[in-house]
Amino acid sequence: MDFYSKFIQRREKYGSLLCVGIDPDSAKLPSSLQKTPDRLYVFSKEIVDATAEFAVAFKPNIAFFEAFGGEGILQFEKLIRHIKLNYPDIPIVADAKRGDLDNTAKQYAKYFFQELEVDSLTLSPYMGSDTIRPFTEYDSKMVFLLCLTSNPDSAELQRKTFSETGRTLYREVAAMSEKFSKRNVGLVVGATHPGEISEIRQAHPDRVLLIPGYGAQGASLEEVLKVCGKDSLVNSSRSIIFSSSGSDFAQAAHNSAKAVSAQMKNLLRF
Amino acid sequence: MDFYSKFIQRREKYGSLLCVGIDPDSAKLPSSLQKTPDRLYVFSKEIVDATAEFAVAFKPNIAFFEAFGGEGILQFEKLIRHIKLNYPDIPIVADAKRGDLDNTAKQYAKYFFQELEVDSLTLSPYMGSDTIRPFTEYDSKMVFLLCLTSNPDSAELQRKTFSETGRTLYREVAAMSEKFSKRNVGLVVGATHPGEISEIRQAHPDRVLLIPGYGAQGASLEEVLKVCGKDSLVNSSRSIIFSSSGSDFAQAAHNSAKAVSAQMKNLLRF
Repeated sequence: MDFYSKFIQRREKYGSLLCVGIDPDSAKLPSSLQKTPDRLYVFSKEIVDATAEFAVAFKPNIAFFEAFGGEGILQFEKLIRHIKLNYPDIPIVADAKRGDLDNTAKQYAKYFFQELEVDSLTLSPYMGSDTIRPFTEYDSKMVFLLCLTSNPDSAELQRKTFSETGRTLYREVAAMSEKFSKRNVGLVVGATHPGEISEIRQAHPDRVLLIPGYGAQGASLEEVLKVCGKDSLVNSSRSIIFSSSGSDFAQAAHNSAKAVSAQMKNLLRF
Repeated sequence: MDFYSKFIQRREKYGSLLCVGIDPDSAKLPSSLQKTPDRLYVFSKEIVDATAEFAVAFKPNIAFFEAFGGEGILQFEKLIRHIKLNYPDIPIVADAKRGDLDNTAKQYAKYFFQELEVDSLTLSPYMGSDTIRPFTEYDSKMVFLLCLTSNPDSAELQRKTFSETGRTLYREVAAMSEKFSKRNVGLVVGATHPGEISEIRQAHPDRVLLIPGYGAQGASLEEVLKVCGKDSLVNSSRSIIFSSSGSDFAQAAHNSAKAVSAQMKNLLRF
């Protein structure tokens, strides 16, 4: 089943848009795991098992695994296999923010889509459409282009306006996504910018949005859900996965995911 | 020794700007290696040994290793250790084109600069300065920001002009680099654009440029060397490393690197 169908199926089943972000930041892992050799995997697997019944999608960030090199990537691969085997209905977004020349892009696409068989991947749009296309040749797969990111300096380039088109860089990237099917290319828009989520949703009603960063410095869940539309994944990482730093971290993550899911269901009222 | 000093030392010793790009594209490896389990490493190591006496720098592209997941990255790490042990004077540019939030950027910086101890890394600038800064906190290390890339669709975003500053996106990235020391942040400018190399060199006389893509669809070596200035690394990958598809591939790479190095020395006349 393709990414989009999996997403819709989960969304309708749970009445929620919750994407659980798996960011196993080694500095924040429970102390009970500090001596476990494959603790990135063990932590992430426990989080997956504890939150699967509320997750519309999982978004593991490969950077936290890559920080440990080859050994870390082997744990990432083990995690993906665990999800695919036990929760085949839950789409996986590999958060990798890749972007490279055509030929190299093909290598990345083969690895993520054919070998690992994740359903989706995040990409940087800086290099242009020919670096996106190799990924879209996998009909059933989705890529999310970085559009307006949630960090403070996102404005530095992304909010400047091109004189040729009258569009900001992030709107130009949103326009670029329209070259491709809505089932193959979506957009990453940070929840720090609810006004812009609304603007992008109106201009691109069919695009699937991936929205990280609500809460903390971002907008509230309510503000985001009011404007993002149904074809969106609203990501929560830290506030779920690091709910407790004790050995009860999995149970705490379960409770947090349950609460967020219920809150979403209530606010969305599908 | 920091990246910049290593680079200058090699450049002055050889009178060349040759960066040998290590792109072990699995589809192009010599058939004699097709059954070697760690052939990405074996091929790359042979190339390194055969070209070290002409290389001002090495630029392994991690994507070709990552295409084989954790096992591939382990081979990449082995290659880096081989270079550091045997050729400690040759600076290594890890071509990774990363770019992620502050906290995640710190993880990447720690891995590449502290664990692997490479001298330099390529980054995507799309997300802004706060995603670059964690790398520049390593005083002795260099990052190269994607500025104007060599692929056909690079124009799609990079050549559009911002009305706020009157600068194209790629010139805006070049301006962004000036926030940092020339010893910490350089620019990637594709050799498909010799006019723009000249323009960037004049506007940013102190920046180190990393210039891939000469020959084939790009400008000639002569055109590039005429405009790039001495603080540049001119990269050659395929035309050196895939000089022969037979079992004499290392010797052929040696000969090609020797020829390019001599050609550079002749054109540059330091």
